[in-house]
Amino acid sequence: MSFKRNVYLKTLSLPEAVGKVLDALARSTVRGDVPAPAPGKTLCPAQEAVGRVLYEAVHARYSSPTCHAAAMDGYAVRAADTFAAREGEPVLLREGESCFAVNTGHPLPADCDAVIMIEHVAVDGKGGVSIEAPAFPWQHVRRIGEDIVATELLFPRNHQIRPCDVGALLSGGIWEVPVWERVLVRIIPTGDEVLDFEQRPDPGRGQVVESNSQVLAALARELGCRVERVKPVPDQPEQLRAALRDSLDAGAHVVIFCAGSSAGSKDYTRSILESEGEILVHGIAAMPGKPSLAAICRGRPVFGAPGYPVSSLICFEELITPAICLLAHRPLPARPEIEVELTRSLPSRLGLEEFVHLAVGRVGEKAVGIPLNRGAGNISTVTRAQAVMRIPAEAEGAAEGSLVRARLSVPPARLYDNLICVGSHDNVLDLLADELMGLPHAFRLISAHVGSMGGITALKKNACHIAGMHLLEEDTGDFNFAFLHKYYPAGRIILLNLAIRQQGLIVPAGNPKGIQGVEDLKGRGLRYINRQRGAGTRILFDWHLRRAGLKPADVDGYAKEESTHMAVAVNVLTGAADCGMGIFAAARALGLDFVPLARERYDLAVPERFWEDPRILAVRDMLLTDAFKTRLENLGGYETRLTGRIMRPGVRLGE
Amino acid sequence: MSFKRNVYLKTLSLPEAVGKVLDALARSTVRGDVPAPAPGKTLCPAQEAVGRVLYEAVHARYSSPTCHAAAMDGYAVRAADTFAAREGEPVLLREGESCFAVNTGHPLPADCDAVIMIEHVAVDGKGGVSIEAPAFPWQHVRRIGEDIVATELLFPRNHQIRPCDVGALLSGGIWEVPVWERVLVRIIPTGDEVLDFEQRPDPGRGQVVESNSQVLAALARELGCRVERVKPVPDQPEQLRAALRDSLDAGAHVVIFCAGSSAGSKDYTRSILESEGEILVHGIAAMPGKPSLAAICRGRPVFGAPGYPVSSLICFEELITPAICLLAHRPLPARPEIEVELTRSLPSRLGLEEFVHLAVGRVGEKAVGIPLNRGAGNISTVTRAQAVMRIPAEAEGAAEGSLVRARLSVPPARLYDNLICVGSHDNVLDLLADELMGLPHAFRLISAHVGSMGGITALKKNACHIAGMHLLEEDTGDFNFAFLHKYYPAGRIILLNLAIRQQGLIVPAGNPKGIQGVEDLKGRGLRYINRQRGAGTRILFDWHLRRAGLKPADVDGYAKEESTHMAVAVNVLTGAADCGMGIFAAARALGLDFVPLARERYDLAVPERFWEDPRILAVRDMLLTDAFKTRLENLGGYETRLTGRIMRPGVRLGE
Repeated sequence: MSFKRNVYLKTLSLPEAVGKVLDALARSTVRGDVPAPAPGKTLCPAQEAVGRVLYEAVHARYSSPTCHAAAMDGYAVRAADTFAAREGEPVLLREGESCFAVNTGHPLPADCDAVIMIEHVAVDGKGGVSIEAPAFPWQHVRRIGEDIVATELLFPRNHQIRPCDVGALLSGGIWEVPVWERVLVRIIPTGDEVLDFEQRPDPGRGQVVESNSQVLAALARELGCRVERVKPVPDQPEQLRAALRDSLDAGAHVVIFCAGSSAGSKDYTRSILESEGEILVHGIAAMPGKPSLAAICRGRPVFGAPGYPVSSLICFEELITPAICLLAHRPLPARPEIEVELTRSLPSRLGLEEFVHLAVGRVGEKAVGIPLNRGAGNISTVTRAQAVMRIPAEAEGAAEGSLVRARLSVPPARLYDNLICVGSHDNVLDLLADELMGLPHAFRLISAHVGSMGGITALKKNACHIAGMHLLEEDTGDFNFAFLHKYYPAGRIILLNLAIRQQGLIVPAGNPKGIQGVEDLKGRGLRYINRQRGAGTRILFDWHLRRAGLKPADVDGYAKEESTHMAVAVNVLTGAADCGMGIFAAARALGLDFVPLARERYDLAVPERFWEDPRILAVRDMLLTDAFKTRLENLGGYETRLTGRIMRPGVRLGE
Repeated sequence: MSFKRNVYLKTLSLPEAVGKVLDALARSTVRGDVPAPAPGKTLCPAQEAVGRVLYEAVHARYSSPTCHAAAMDGYAVRAADTFAAREGEPVLLREGESCFAVNTGHPLPADCDAVIMIEHVAVDGKGGVSIEAPAFPWQHVRRIGEDIVATELLFPRNHQIRPCDVGALLSGGIWEVPVWERVLVRIIPTGDEVLDFEQRPDPGRGQVVESNSQVLAALARELGCRVERVKPVPDQPEQLRAALRDSLDAGAHVVIFCAGSSAGSKDYTRSILESEGEILVHGIAAMPGKPSLAAICRGRPVFGAPGYPVSSLICFEELITPAICLLAHRPLPARPEIEVELTRSLPSRLGLEEFVHLAVGRVGEKAVGIPLNRGAGNISTVTRAQAVMRIPAEAEGAAEGSLVRARLSVPPARLYDNLICVGSHDNVLDLLADELMGLPHAFRLISAHVGSMGGITALKKNACHIAGMHLLEEDTGDFNFAFLHKYYPAGRIILLNLAIRQQGLIVPAGNPKGIQGVEDLKGRGLRYINRQRGAGTRILFDWHLRRAGLKPADVDGYAKEESTHMAVAVNVLTGAADCGMGIFAAARALGLDFVPLARERYDLAVPERFWEDPRILAVRDMLLTDAFKTRLENLGGYETRLTGRIMRPGVRLGE
């Protein structure tokens, strides 16, 4: 393989890049030197027009109501006939002459100008109707055109139709509305290594299931676009060129290449766009999303979205969305923003705008933002987030505890339903998350895995509602109390047991190397995979090491860290390591074997002030249900003897 | 017609009513004494699942990445082989032995644990690769399962799938997701007087085009429902009963009758639901929406939504939506709320919760809320609103200038694009509204029609950006200055001319009664339709009356008021009045004749502090364009000699 690399054009800031694309589009659609590259006018039945954007102003054809009409059930009258009526001095009206029975909505008989409610009349059963109060003119009458006047403007051009608008359109006699055609987006996935999800493939080493096209397709549909996706195209210049030409011939208003926009040796998109049109942008000063590409070909915008899922998403939202909205005549999506308190510092490179996804919840009076993994390759960074913040190019980062503005992907009110759990990782938290979402008032458990010690830090910073921990006190054999006392002496914390669980060495199925305990880790050429510093499991491992008379240097792989039990198990499953310490449930989930070493208490630490919070009440109730305990036991490697109970120092694990 | 009326059951508060419905649903779906009345499980392809709600938790089948993979283009190495490298003391690696060329995403060769970026190596072209810095373990490597670990929880039950989730599902090997079936909603429009919009009818006197079903259908679709609408059913008990049974037989999870839920003589819905099931709610203590009806029939919720469009909408959003969300396992829609300053007082009845729609915009530092017409019959109340506020049952209203919470129907950021215009009504404002929506950065003109004097009041209260006015100064023949000076002496206001316009008497086509001027209004039995107090047109009319030596008492209909030119014209068109004063454009729009009386200046009054506001700049620019002036002149009855120019006292109208 050779390294003939493309070179990025001058990297542009996002506003510069967007400006170049929009300017080019405005030029090409206005000048119109190529036939109709932009969406035009079409007609849509009014009742199907929700979400569509009006091509031109719509005026009413009918008035509503079409005539003066009764607004109440009762009698229509001439108000002047009633002016003499007083309490005790009734006026008698004759049905069919001076008064007329009407139901709500009925047209007013000629010359009538008021309605008296049925509750306010006395009917003698012989055509006489007496009233004891005068009616004032137009009382309980809906006037002609009170709602809509024929010929009046119902909606201006570029108005996006909402459900209520359908009522006004139909009432105004508008059966079809002139709307902009939907923007047609063609998405072209590329890459030799990608597998077409439509084949339901089993990915081998180094293969990936192509999914970016479907994320972008869904986002484009949310902007009202029609989307066509072609089959993945391999990294072959002529096939890529043919896919582009075919898309333009098919009338696509926007074309998006997925991957291949970078500067690697097999990234052909740029050279193709160079020969088929004009490159506008190659490289934006933003992370993730830097290798974004934009061009204009035959009057249509063509984009190269980076291959990493988060980069691809940011390229779509920041660069492609403005172009689509321009063509669709829609305003840019406006997401709500709030201020959140950062739970840790975020260093960032000067000169590069950075997007950081945050898990967000309301903890007490404030909203906290937990920065998620910044890997551009991890779609889970986005799926776990409730917000995204920007670190401007001219900043070197954001400090822990600082208030930053974040753009929410959920309604602000929903944050009150988020339960923030920071600390040790355990699979039972997933089970709890699932059960909490099944409640009539559902709560969303958001858990950040930073180890037991990280959980104590989060409690101190008021950055979470609960912290999961399993910290062995070597002297007493008890758990957690001594650590809380030492590292957060001021904290008023209640420990609620989640489960007693089994820890041990996760080994390949059949335990081919015959590992019996930590003693085997020295001198047998075994590769270990460790947990991160501060993890309770690491503390437990260190204790077992010491008990066996070993040092970290004796263990090959001691420096290789993962931050969850499952990640450790995956290392064992794929042969990247021979063993690692973790819980039985993780081994079982991947069909691995397990060498038990210890039982331990996994507790949820809850600040007293949240003890009656609806989210905590839901957890407390849930842990006590038989259904939850049964599901927990079925995971294997857990005991539920203490589950849901408040812990006191000295509680024994029992047999 | 007789008045055999139903009587409301005990009227319930909204929370009570919702509670009764949800309790009954929980009982019927849990007990399951009738077969499967609630939605069940179905499978949906992952890429089509956006918006759907998970029936059960989804776990990953594959890890992503499937193996340790290069995160950069460059060379894969064993970190330990590089530790000796220093600046000036390079380490030489051999391609294919101690280093391996990789592109981003490639699997790491066996035993490699780091990648060195291509930018940081020197390649000698003969298989030698030298580096001058050590690589640390796992640098530029995406670890196995770094994004997703096989068997881990991807999403809990009842999670609603978003675009980014599709990426995680496909990457995790989930091709189909278990989701809740869509809730099937049957909507049954009722009423003898309603016309089916599908027939594209011409409504006669007292007829209305049935549109509520389509508004509710669109709202239900936004909640993810499938919707079926049957043809309108006349007010015949057995036909209504058959429509209900047919809907339940067809598997509807929710049935909604449109209209007929009230207590009128032809409101049969209640008696039918009584015999076919159990009535839960009849009458809620809320306005609009009071005549709402809820029952449970064969385990399914059945609703009677009131016939008035605003009542129907509120019944749907407050009573029906919670039931649908329960069945669909979705959270209730959470709209953003903001505080707005009310521009006028809202009296309200004790004991009745009231919903008031508001036009909302940002004026200077605050958000103002202009209460719209409270008529439950006017869908335009909803289409013109950006927010709705509640007056609680225990309050007697809300005071002018008070801050109230309002639930927005638009994103909060969008309010900065709303231009609030309060004052006199003129059709040119609609034209301006349309043109402003055609700008690259569109602005929405929100105009409240309260007359010229009302506009001055709004300026004083800082409740608008601009006010439209055409107030004749009788002494000078000038316009507006003297009124602003008298009623708002402290105001620093700039007057920008919109147009010179023709005022006169609007008369039926052909002027059958031969009206020549205001003199004819005395003693000839002509019925006049007036404008509201404070309207410039009324002031002008009064001046012409006085000039003709007439008094208000001489004019039949002087007390009958409308608040727009178009409403006056509609009264003339339908024969409700013989003439009314208004602008030529209104007469022409409805094909009426026009007796010219006067030319006048219609100005936009703009506070100095908003002169450079982007919204005002857009108006200023727009008024000066030839395109706008041409459209204005084509309306008829307008001159554009002064349009877009700043007015000074003493400007003459010219010939």
